[in-house]
Parts: sequence; C-alpha cells; structure tokens
Amino acid sequence: MNRIITISRQFGSGGRTIGKEVAKELGIPCYDKELIEKIAEETGYASEYIMEESEYAPNASGFAYSFLGRGSDGLSNADRIWFAQRKVILNLAEKENCVIVGRCADYLLKDKADCLNVFIYATPEFRAQRIVKLYGESPVAPLKRLADKDKKRKLNYKYFTEQEWGKTQNYHMCLDSGYLGIENVVDLIVNNTFRKKGEIESGK
Amino acid sequence: MNRIITISRQFGSGGRTIGKEVAKELGIPCYDKELIEKIAEETGYASEYIMEESEYAPNASGFAYSFLGRGSDGLSNADRIWFAQRKVILNLAEKENCVIVGRCADYLLKDKADCLNVFIYATPEFRAQRIVKLYGESPVAPLKRLADKDKKRKLNYKYFTEQEWGKTQNYHMCLDSGYLGIENVVDLIVNNTFRKKGEIESGK
Repeated sequence: MNRIITISRQFGSGGRTIGKEVAKELGIPCYDKELIEKIAEETGYASEYIMEESEYAPNASGFAYSFLGRGSDGLSNADRIWFAQRKVILNLAEKENCVIVGRCADYLLKDKADCLNVFIYATPEFRAQRIVKLYGESPVAPLKRLADKDKKRKLNYKYFTEQEWGKTQNYHMCLDSGYLGIENVVDLIVNNTFRKKGEIESGK
Repeated sequence: MNRIITISRQFGSGGRTIGKEVAKELGIPCYDKELIEKIAEETGYASEYIMEESEYAPNASGFAYSFLGRGSDGLSNADRIWFAQRKVILNLAEKENCVIVGRCADYLLKDKADCLNVFIYATPEFRAQRIVKLYGESPVAPLKRLADKDKKRKLNYKYFTEQEWGKTQNYHMCLDSGYLGIENVVDLIVNNTFRKKGEIESGK
C-alpha cells in the first residue's frame, strides 16, 4: 500500500512550502494546486471557478451563495466539486506515494490509505508577517486575511466532513511551524513518514 | 532563563512515562505527583485530598460539590489549591530546567517562562489497551474510564484557564503517541527542547 502524507494547514503557516520540501526530500510528487487542474478535468469547470468556489474563495457570502445553489439534478456545484475531489484524491493515493496538501485529504483517505496526517499551524503574528512577506500588502489587514481564510477552511471542512478542522485527534502530528521552524518541521515529517507498521501498532 | 517542558496528556496516552523519560534523557527533574506533595505543603491539605479533589478525582459530581463550596474567607478549596499550584509551578520554573506533567503548567507559565509546550494524545483503542495493561481491569469499562478522566481534565482546565484543553494552538507540538510510538515521541521532544531562541524567532 502506498504511503500518503496529508498536510492540513492554517493560512500563512508555511504548510504548502513544507509539503513541497517533504516531497522533494522523499523524491515523491506533491499535489497542491495540481489537484485543482485534475478536479477541473473531472467536472468540466474552469480551474479559476473551482479555486474561487472552494477554499480559495475571497468572499464567504459569495461562496455560500453560488456554492450551495442546486442544479436540475439536485446536486450543487459544491457537491460536484466534492465528489470529483474525492475521486481525484482516492486515485492519487492508489497510484503512488505522495504528499497531498489541503482539500480534506486526511478525511477522504481515512480507512482507505496508509496515511501520515499532519496539521501545521503557527501564531497569528508569525503568519501575518509571513503572508505580507510572501504575498505583499493588501487593503485588508493581515490578521483579518488570516481569520477569513481559516474561517473558510474550517467551514468547508465541517460542511463536508462533519468533523472539526485542526482538532488534534484527526492528525498524527500537529506542529507549530513558527516555533519549530519550517526546515525542522520538514525533517520531523520526513523522519516519521516510513515508520514500520509493526512499530505503529505496538506503539513502541 | 530556564527551559521548561510542559506535558499535557490524554489519560492513557503515556504522557507521564514520556515526561519521565524526557527528563531522564536530559538529566533534569520531572514533576508529576511530586507537585501534589508541594501543593499539600503550601495549603496544609492532605495529599490524598488534593489528589481526590482535582484531576485525579474518581467522581465528577463529588468533585464539583466539595470543590466549589466556599469557606468563610470567600475562597473555595479549589481556589486555594489553584493558587498554591500556581505558586509551586512558578517557583519550580524559576529554579531550574525541568519537565512538568499536567496541572495547567502550559497556561500558568505562559509569558512567564521559556517553555516547550507538548500535548500527547492517542486513539481511544490504544489508550484503553494501555490502561488495562498498566492499571488492570476495573468494574468500569476502559473506554468509559478514559472518557471520565479526560472530561475531568478538560473541565478543570476550562474552569481555571478559560481555554480549551488539547487545542493545537495552546501547544508547540501535539503528538499521537500510539501512532508515533512512545520512545519516538521522547526523542522528538528531547531533540526540540533546546532549539536556539534565534531560530525560534525567525522561524527558520
């Protein structure tokens, strides 16, 4: 069975960078925005639409409006994206060892794949500094941008999984990237990726 | 400034064993039940009473009854124990590098000491197996014993700190000891105990 590393992350915590570095170290692919392209192929929707309509949506009320309206077949666009996302992620997990960032992969692969589930977070101050450095200034204050993004991820996760995003018990390791350092977090994940199944079961 | 490792843990997750092993590896003291003795000295209450009245209480309703009743000075026994616990923990943190298990030390030392805060958890199945192996069978089913203990710890933490026990953001690392293995968790903590302050601040 392939080993999948799922990375869930607070906005600005460096989760995406960490996912890419982990994949590079292990010599396996990392799926992040590439998932959007695959979901676009499945649904026939434009990538931009999928990005806007899901966790990357810039506006929560717009999100809810267009996301939850239902078509003539009784499925909302959100549902169609969700089912495509599920299919894409299950297929990837069957194909090869890989890293998957975001998109409820931890939940979708629960009991279906051999996963190491990681949650990356950091203080609002660390994340605010990091997003301004990476994405530049914006008319919206950094702390507000963080709160908006995370609220959306939390709602999206709750809506589809009925689970609480960022709750320790849903992951094997939850790491504060601001405190532990991004490179160190990469090492911690890489070093724990291929723990032997026997070790895991006996908890030794 | 001394470096303090605080370990919060779900019942049966091996947090106490992990704390002791970490302290042994680092050659520093570990305070767990020893805290009770110190709180007993401060308050004049018997150790057994303190154990019964706080997180080790076997019965939640009894806990609430005797814990929240107030004396003639307006303080409840719970308050007296809380203030003594705070004093004992702050004194220890001023004295030397050490490991402190439980007793809201992460909260009490927030902004007052140089801490690595760790939360240890595991699946109910792993913990149930572990408590039966360690403490033997009991008339109460293992999963019920886990739920009772954790509920008490959660309520105690919430009552005094107004924070949520086990919420990722209150810790620097949250580790599933069943999945990662107890010895491995010890190593992860030891290896991250003395990260240099500069590295922490820049998040590198």
